[in-house]
Amino acid sequence: MQLLDGKATAEKIREELKLAVETRKSRGQKIPHLAAVIVGSDGASRTYVNSKVKTCEKVGFKSTLIELATDISEEELLAKVNDLNLDDEIDGFIVQLPLPKHIDEHKITLAIRPSKDVDGFHPENIGRMMLNLPCFLPATPAGIVELLDRYAIETSGKHCVVIGRSNIVGSPMSILMWRNAKIGNCTVTITHSRTKHLDEISKSADILIVALGKPEFVTKDMVKDGAVVVDVGIHRVEDASRRSGFKLLGDVKFDEVAPKCSFISPVPGGVGPMTIASLMINTLRAMDLKGN
Amino acid sequence: MQLLDGKATAEKIREELKLAVETRKSRGQKIPHLAAVIVGSDGASRTYVNSKVKTCEKVGFKSTLIELATDISEEELLAKVNDLNLDDEIDGFIVQLPLPKHIDEHKITLAIRPSKDVDGFHPENIGRMMLNLPCFLPATPAGIVELLDRYAIETSGKHCVVIGRSNIVGSPMSILMWRNAKIGNCTVTITHSRTKHLDEISKSADILIVALGKPEFVTKDMVKDGAVVVDVGIHRVEDASRRSGFKLLGDVKFDEVAPKCSFISPVPGGVGPMTIASLMINTLRAMDLKGN
Repeated sequence: MQLLDGKATAEKIREELKLAVETRKSRGQKIPHLAAVIVGSDGASRTYVNSKVKTCEKVGFKSTLIELATDISEEELLAKVNDLNLDDEIDGFIVQLPLPKHIDEHKITLAIRPSKDVDGFHPENIGRMMLNLPCFLPATPAGIVELLDRYAIETSGKHCVVIGRSNIVGSPMSILMWRNAKIGNCTVTITHSRTKHLDEISKSADILIVALGKPEFVTKDMVKDGAVVVDVGIHRVEDASRRSGFKLLGDVKFDEVAPKCSFISPVPGGVGPMTIASLMINTLRAMDLKGN
Repeated sequence: MQLLDGKATAEKIREELKLAVETRKSRGQKIPHLAAVIVGSDGASRTYVNSKVKTCEKVGFKSTLIELATDISEEELLAKVNDLNLDDEIDGFIVQLPLPKHIDEHKITLAIRPSKDVDGFHPENIGRMMLNLPCFLPATPAGIVELLDRYAIETSGKHCVVIGRSNIVGSPMSILMWRNAKIGNCTVTITHSRTKHLDEISKSADILIVALGKPEFVTKDMVKDGAVVVDVGIHRVEDASRRSGFKLLGDVKFDEVAPKCSFISPVPGGVGPMTIASLMINTLRAMDLKGN
């Protein structure tokens, strides 16, 4: 069994991005600039956004953190989005989800100009993804593709089973895995809450991508010997034995599944760091596409 | 075995649309107006476009056929598309594919305003489809969904296998079948030219949707007893024994597969008429969405 080490891979990508930024600097070209909008003070959201901003610093990107009060109106947030759409200094930006209940998330996502949508959530980017046209890929699925690519996982003709059909992971992931691309060309089965005989299906997977959001859902009986397993889940679970008082678990019961796998991504240190790396790659591309 | 009779179902839909148009007329409201652009004189394309125009007449829609010379430049065609985007009288329009080689089809598709894209080919409509947001569904997959719905086929929790991953059928069809919707909630496996053991996979399908474009590719050994089979293929094959000199075949070997099925769509008279019906439904919706 070999680990799909997202932490190490993301670090390598950061080094590459840093080099790209330095080259740009030396040529007097613009430095990529990511803006992140956060509404309210949800702890997890703040952690995510901070880590995105911190990664910008590490790779030499500029970043702007825009903190807005929980009671901001939808209209005001839309105006902010529009400002960012029009601001030539900002190459790409994200609005951290979830948003407070009084704001329609879809409306906000749709308001982001597709050419600055480095999260890859805008329908135009998703449609372009399905059509295999240039686009920003959603960060988590793109990070997984990058991880599989860097570990030279053979995907063509393999059976990929995706557990979960969410808008941000399961659905786009499935599309990416069947597309005619270097990482792609799989026979893909997408499963979800209505799926029957999930055990049998997941056991037939050469590549199993788990994104349903239930701690340690996938057990060893659900995985074929030699499978490649990618665990997208991340759950904070109380653990009195640790100094922090908690531990992080994935959707896969790692200890018992890992020995059966050819490759498996751990939690933490697997998909998570790759998601942020993808966001950085998208931001660099956003700038390049603008012709800066 | 019961036929999924697309011809009869499409006729029923036409009657419903006719009624909707008459109601609008009696209220002094606008009549839906579809424009169809055809470039060059390809026989098959002309047949398709003519049948779309004829269907408009049948249901009482206005239609405008715009015939352009094969040697029209990309720029001129884009200008035409833009005229149609801006023309308030036109509710929706299509540009019949394929286009001559010197014109970039994607560029044309992208130029069509999503709110008038009644073919449902624009990336924004495809992305909205994946996100389960209001959109124009691509006509062929939408027609299949409508057909399954009108025959009250239970899809939730079923295993749907799609053969073919084209942009206009296989890929969007797969997405529609896994979405959380009345016709949807399937476990979906998408297969294509790189798929191994296709026979086994297709044989595990409760619902088999065949859209790979090879005459009589699916034989009885590939189909489970009691399966629902939808045949999207249509091929004109020489047949000296017929007065016309040809016959139409699907992607499924109908005679030997049909007896095994609970439901099967024939060729012709299955998916084809439903595709045009979907286009009409989209056109009516395009007008409604404009608030006319």
